[in-house]
Parts: sequence; C-alpha cells; structure tokens
Amino acid sequence: MSGRCPFATRRGFLTAAGSLVAAAGTTALAVPGGATARAAVLPPEAGGPSERRQIEPFWGEHQGGIATPPQTHTYFAAFDLTTDKASDVVAMLRLWTEASVRMAAGETAEPLSKDLVKPAADSGEALGLSPARLTLTFGLGAGLFTKDGKDRYGLAKRRPQALVDLPRFNGDQMIATYTGGDLSVQACADDPQVAFHAVRQLARLAYGHAQIRWTQAGFGSNQAAGGTPRNLMGFKDGTINPVPEAASKQTKGPHQASLEEVVWAGTEGPAWMRGGSYLVVRRIRMALEHWDRMEVGFQEQVFGRQKYSGAPLGRTHELDPLDLAATDKDGNPVIPDSAHVRLGAAESNGGAQILRRGYSYNDGVSFTAERWPPWHQGMEYDAGLLFLCYQRDPRAGFIKIYENMSKLDMLNQFVTHNGSGVFACPKGVARGEFIAEPLFA
Amino acid sequence: MSGRCPFATRRGFLTAAGSLVAAAGTTALAVPGGATARAAVLPPEAGGPSERRQIEPFWGEHQGGIATPPQTHTYFAAFDLTTDKASDVVAMLRLWTEASVRMAAGETAEPLSKDLVKPAADSGEALGLSPARLTLTFGLGAGLFTKDGKDRYGLAKRRPQALVDLPRFNGDQMIATYTGGDLSVQACADDPQVAFHAVRQLARLAYGHAQIRWTQAGFGSNQAAGGTPRNLMGFKDGTINPVPEAASKQTKGPHQASLEEVVWAGTEGPAWMRGGSYLVVRRIRMALEHWDRMEVGFQEQVFGRQKYSGAPLGRTHELDPLDLAATDKDGNPVIPDSAHVRLGAAESNGGAQILRRGYSYNDGVSFTAERWPPWHQGMEYDAGLLFLCYQRDPRAGFIKIYENMSKLDMLNQFVTHNGSGVFACPKGVARGEFIAEPLFA
Repeated sequence: MSGRCPFATRRGFLTAAGSLVAAAGTTALAVPGGATARAAVLPPEAGGPSERRQIEPFWGEHQGGIATPPQTHTYFAAFDLTTDKASDVVAMLRLWTEASVRMAAGETAEPLSKDLVKPAADSGEALGLSPARLTLTFGLGAGLFTKDGKDRYGLAKRRPQALVDLPRFNGDQMIATYTGGDLSVQACADDPQVAFHAVRQLARLAYGHAQIRWTQAGFGSNQAAGGTPRNLMGFKDGTINPVPEAASKQTKGPHQASLEEVVWAGTEGPAWMRGGSYLVVRRIRMALEHWDRMEVGFQEQVFGRQKYSGAPLGRTHELDPLDLAATDKDGNPVIPDSAHVRLGAAESNGGAQILRRGYSYNDGVSFTAERWPPWHQGMEYDAGLLFLCYQRDPRAGFIKIYENMSKLDMLNQFVTHNGSGVFACPKGVARGEFIAEPLFA
Repeated sequence: MSGRCPFATRRGFLTAAGSLVAAAGTTALAVPGGATARAAVLPPEAGGPSERRQIEPFWGEHQGGIATPPQTHTYFAAFDLTTDKASDVVAMLRLWTEASVRMAAGETAEPLSKDLVKPAADSGEALGLSPARLTLTFGLGAGLFTKDGKDRYGLAKRRPQALVDLPRFNGDQMIATYTGGDLSVQACADDPQVAFHAVRQLARLAYGHAQIRWTQAGFGSNQAAGGTPRNLMGFKDGTINPVPEAASKQTKGPHQASLEEVVWAGTEGPAWMRGGSYLVVRRIRMALEHWDRMEVGFQEQVFGRQKYSGAPLGRTHELDPLDLAATDKDGNPVIPDSAHVRLGAAESNGGAQILRRGYSYNDGVSFTAERWPPWHQGMEYDAGLLFLCYQRDPRAGFIKIYENMSKLDMLNQFVTHNGSGVFACPKGVARGEFIAEPLFA
C-alpha cells in the first residue's frame, strides 16, 4: 500500500495533468481549454430593498447573535489556534471582522476577482441568497490566554476572572471532539446554507493560524407568531427567559430580569468585556426513543409543564407564573421537587438567570446500547439540543443553576451532556475596529 | 460494574419512584402530584387558510416528494424490517399511511388523547408548526423481497426486475451504517423540525416490526425565484434536469425529456409500480477544504461551467445548451473531456437521464488524514451532498450514467460516495388504500 503513488490510488486513475498541479497548491495552472486566457464572469452585486430588511447590523455596542431575535438556523464552530504569534491572531481577527461585515450585508467574504488562476475569494454557495439576518458572534476560550501552561500571546494576565473553566457536572459524558476551543464562532441565519457558508469562509481565512476543532449545526422551528418553540421532546422550553426590552412588555413575567442585569458584562471586569457576555455551550443528546414511550402525565411531571399548552402544572396558560409553593389536596407539590422548571427557575437558584438561545440538532443515528429498561440496543437518534446560553458571569449563571439541576432534574434520565465549551464574547465592534481589538492593545 | 443496578448508575441518583415505573414500560403510573387524576389539555386544531396553502396532497397517481417542487429540508431514513410476518408489514404500512395522511395535513400522527397514563400519540414537536408542504415518499428495498436468501414475506417472486442491486462503482468508499435498508422514507418539508417529526412518528409506529437503519438530514438553499440552487462547492448543480411539465416551458432545454419518459415506471413492470419510480440515494462527502484552495479556473474546468453565472464554458447564460463539440483555437474541447457536465449529459450516456433531487448535508467535522497534497490531516467537514434521484429504471438511469462518471469525472478527486441505497417507490396511494397495498394483494 504505502509504496504506491497516492494519486494513482485516489480513484485509480489520473484525470488530467492540470488537476494534479492545482491539487499541489501551486499557482501555475495548466488545464485543457486554456483557463489562463479567460477571466471569471462576476455575479451581479446584491442589495435590493428586500435584502436590506434581511440584514442584522454588525457594528454596535453588543455583538449580534446574543440578544438578536433567534434566527431559524445556527452553525457553531470552535477553533484551535495553531500559531504562536499574537500578531497572527490579530491579523486573523482583522480578516474575520472584515469578512463578517461583508457577509452580514449579504456580500462575499472578500471581493471576488476576475482572476481565474487564484483560488476564489469566496466559496460561492451563498451567492444569490438573502443575507438571511446573518449574525456572527465571536468568543474567546481559555486557550487564547493560557494553553498547556504556556502564555502564547502575552495575554495570560488579561484573562477575565469570569472566564472560569466549567467544573465536571454530575452526569457529564463528554466526547473530546465536542469540547473546548481557543475561539468560538456562532453563526446564526434564517438559511442553513448562509450559516454554513459564513463559518467556512472564516475557517478558510484562518488557514495556517487556526483550525476548526468541532462544530455543530442546529435548527429552530418556525413557531408561528412568537410562541415559545418546542424542543424535540415536544415541550415548550425556555418560556422563562429574559428577553430584549423591546419585546418584553407583553411576555415578561414577574421573575424576569433585564438583559443588563443578566446578560451584559459591566464594570466588574475588563473594559473590553463591558457590553460583552459569556457563552456556555452544551451539546445535549436526548434519548428520544425512550422518551416517546413515556406516559404523557409522566412527561409533564418531569418538565413541570403541560405538554400541549405549555402552562405550568396547576395553571392554564403558558405565560402564567410558576407557583412553586402550590400543593394538591394531599399536600404534595403540584410542581414536583425534581421537575425541570422548578430546578431551573430563578427562585430555586438565588435569582440566577441566563439568556437561553437553544437550537435543536439532528445528526442522524448511531449505535447505542441502553443498559436500563427496556434494555434496547440499536441505532438511536443522535439528536437533541445545542444549548447556547449567555450571561454576565458563568459562576452566577449556568454553573450556579446547573450544579443543582445536574444532580436533581428528572429530565437527566433522558438527556446526556456530551459537548461543552465556555467563551468570553467581547463587547460589540465599533466601526473601524476589529473584534476584541482592545484586548490586544 | 456489571453487578450494579442500572438505575443507580444512570446519573448516580434515583429521582422519583414514578419515573422508574414509567421507565419499565408498565401502564401504572405513580408520580407525585397525582397525574392520574388529571387529564391532558389538548391543543387547538390546525387548519386555517394559510395553512392549507402549505399542504401537499398525499393521495394521487404518483407519490409526493418526487416531482413535487423541492422543499427546503429533507430527512431521509432507511429501515430494517425485524418481523418475519407479512401481516405485520401490512399492518405497519397501514399505520404509516394513516399517519402520513394526517401529518401531511398538519395534524398529529394519531389523534391526541386526554389520557395522561398512555404514551403520547404524537411526540409533539410539530404542534403549532405549519404543514410546511410535508411529503413522505416510501420505498421498498431488496430486503423486503429476499433477505439473506430468505423469502420472509412470500414476495420474492414479486421483486421488480428494475430493482437491481447497485454494482460497486469505481471509488466507492461505503460506510456500512449509511447503506441499504428494507424500506425507505424520504420526508421533505420547508421546516426541518416538521421533516424530523414525521420520520420519528413513523419509527415509533414501527416499533417491534421495523427499526431505523440509517438516516441523513439535508437542506437546500432558499435560492431566489426558482434559480438552480448552488451546492456546497459553490456551483449551480442540476441545471440539466427534467422538470415537471407545468414548470418546464421556460427552462426546458433541447435535451430534456419528460417525466413520463424519465421518471415514472410504465407497463414494463408490475402494476403496483406503474406511476411509481426508483430511488437511488447516495451520501457524497465533499473535500471542501481542499476544493476551496483550488483556482477558480480549475474549478470551472472540473464542472464545465462558469462558477458565478452557471453558464456552460464557452456560453453566456446558465440555461444556454451545452455545446460538447465546441473547440478552442487550439482544437481543444471548450468543455473538457473529464468535465462533470459533459459526463453527466444525456448525450454522453445514450440519452440516459434521471430526476435529481439533491440536498446538501452538514454533519459537522471528523478527523481525516488526506494522503495526497497538501498532506493535511485534522478535523475536516463531514458535509456534502445527499444525492437523491428518481428514474424509471436504475439500469437505464443512475447506473448507466454513473458507471461512466465514476471512472472519468474530474470531480471525483473532491467527492467520496460513502452511503448508498436503491428503493422501488410504488405508485401513489388511492384514497382508502395503504402504501404498496397491491403488492400484498
């Protein structure tokens, strides 16, 4: 095997001498048809009035994709930095910022060229598509500050105190290829191809400086008229969630705090994080085959909500407040002690809250042996929740809430956290700046 | 390990006695809060005028999802039959038909019940969503007729001649968990959650008779105004494709045949296949990182089309006919001998054509070692094309075309076929019938 020419074994034939030259990454290109004599015909530029309505602003006090009303699709990617030079990281972040501004406006990552003997400045699969409200949200992982005990970029002292490593939670079943990352990019858009395209361009621009470590695509349902989306367990999930002020008048319940309190970092940390937020991401596989065989009444006890209306147990409407003190005629709590909504509620966590931005994921099926009744083994869905949440400080947010939930939540029988990351998402980018610029100043 | 109670090790705690009873699959349910005393509150029924516009008819001469204008998402699933009784298969297909009729109309798979001590008749994640033009297209694999040399259901003699096993094509790199299946379901919808939901209900209804073997989700781009979608290589792919008569007047090129000729099985086969079609599915991973480093001119030579306009090389507009005889001033073919469009064209395949129904897929990244320049190894996209195609006879369609392409197409340097299946999709279902009913008569 090893003595054979790799070209000769790749498909067992040689197609054209030109393709091999190109595959070797040289700039000379000898192909039949004389491509060097032609010039690329560029597509018309985007930008009609209906497209502008599909544009989320890139510049601003906060990064997009945090308080932005959720788009229907996401593609999340964590990157490992492979360079040892801070100047490379800066150059890459500058490129990423320029490309992000362009892509959010529905343009190609870089201006296209008529030059046929250069790789394309954009892979092209989003040409002709709407900007689809694309947002790109950047995060900085612990590895940017210190990696394997090494201060690669002179940033070790600048690591925000709030950027803590997550503890190992009860029940964690982490898969290494779904964890960590020195940088994160959350692309959200109303078109999955637009989200995929955006991350791909950034990965291409990072060549030699950073490489993708893991990714996860996700989708939301097109729930009519602003209702709370249902997760793949068929329940409305995330009803109690702080919402942007503009949208909060009708739906904000008595326990809901403002984004200023819950989401945006303030003067307690470094200046480059003021107006930023901390992202905790968890990949949560659901045992859907198992769940589907549970009685509806049991499912409702697990969540603490009615399946169909979304109302808290004992109440009528989805947005009715939780009454955690309510008991039935026998003195038992109407919402069980181990119900998901009880354990996640601010009242059960000393007021702790997070901004939840969840997407469902569907990665097909994989072989699974369930070692509990009904002892099934076979292909089971690798599907569930890409849980993304934003908070002012993970210690007072996700960590505080999930320390408790991971031990007690009845839902844990049906879900497995197998991916995880925590990232500091800097403040929004001012015009002319690049993302996280003040950190490197 | 093995001596421990499986409940005690699943999360290391016992949540509530009730959950264990339920997990064991008994009908008795003892949970705090007295679920047995309550009744489920059912959601309002669907069906406003705007919803009706989102409904594709289920009954008809042909199955939906073949000539239906492509929805933006698909979830494809192949099933293995686990029963040895034809009567079980019939009962299951009857259930599948009833559920499909309901779901295509935006309803739950089965009527919901107020009974809280039964599993839900529907997992619920599509409640409140549009019907989203859901179509469900059913296929029969070779294993329904004969499996491991055994005629399980007395159908061996009824296997259509056109339902051949695919040969091993040049370059095939099959992964067992993406191949085969006794039955197939292609769910297409304009909402990924609706497509996932539909397959999941069918899988649930099949419990004990069939189980999922493999699945693949896919998406299309929301290309404006009927343009040919771009694949993840950034090229318009599938321009030459037979189209339904109603849509064909403007776009049908000189070499395009009608669906009657290309897609629908006729009197040459069994009556239950007349008006049906044969599905070939291929999971095609693309080496996108590699592709992105190729010169635009080289990419255009590989496809035989301009990247941005989609026009055939040497022409101006996407829909301009291919001129396979054209040569440049040096006498070289304008469209290279090994170009994708040349090898796929009907003229190169004795007139053979297929109806292409492709979706992109994005399953994240996995570790890949490229054993050819530039000798990269690391995490690479597990993304590409879920290629679904329909034809009157695979021997005169996909097999004939791809035998040639698999050996010569320059594109093969950048794509790997790693999943495959072939299925006979029976004629459409008449009102009151179940899918494939005449086969079992």
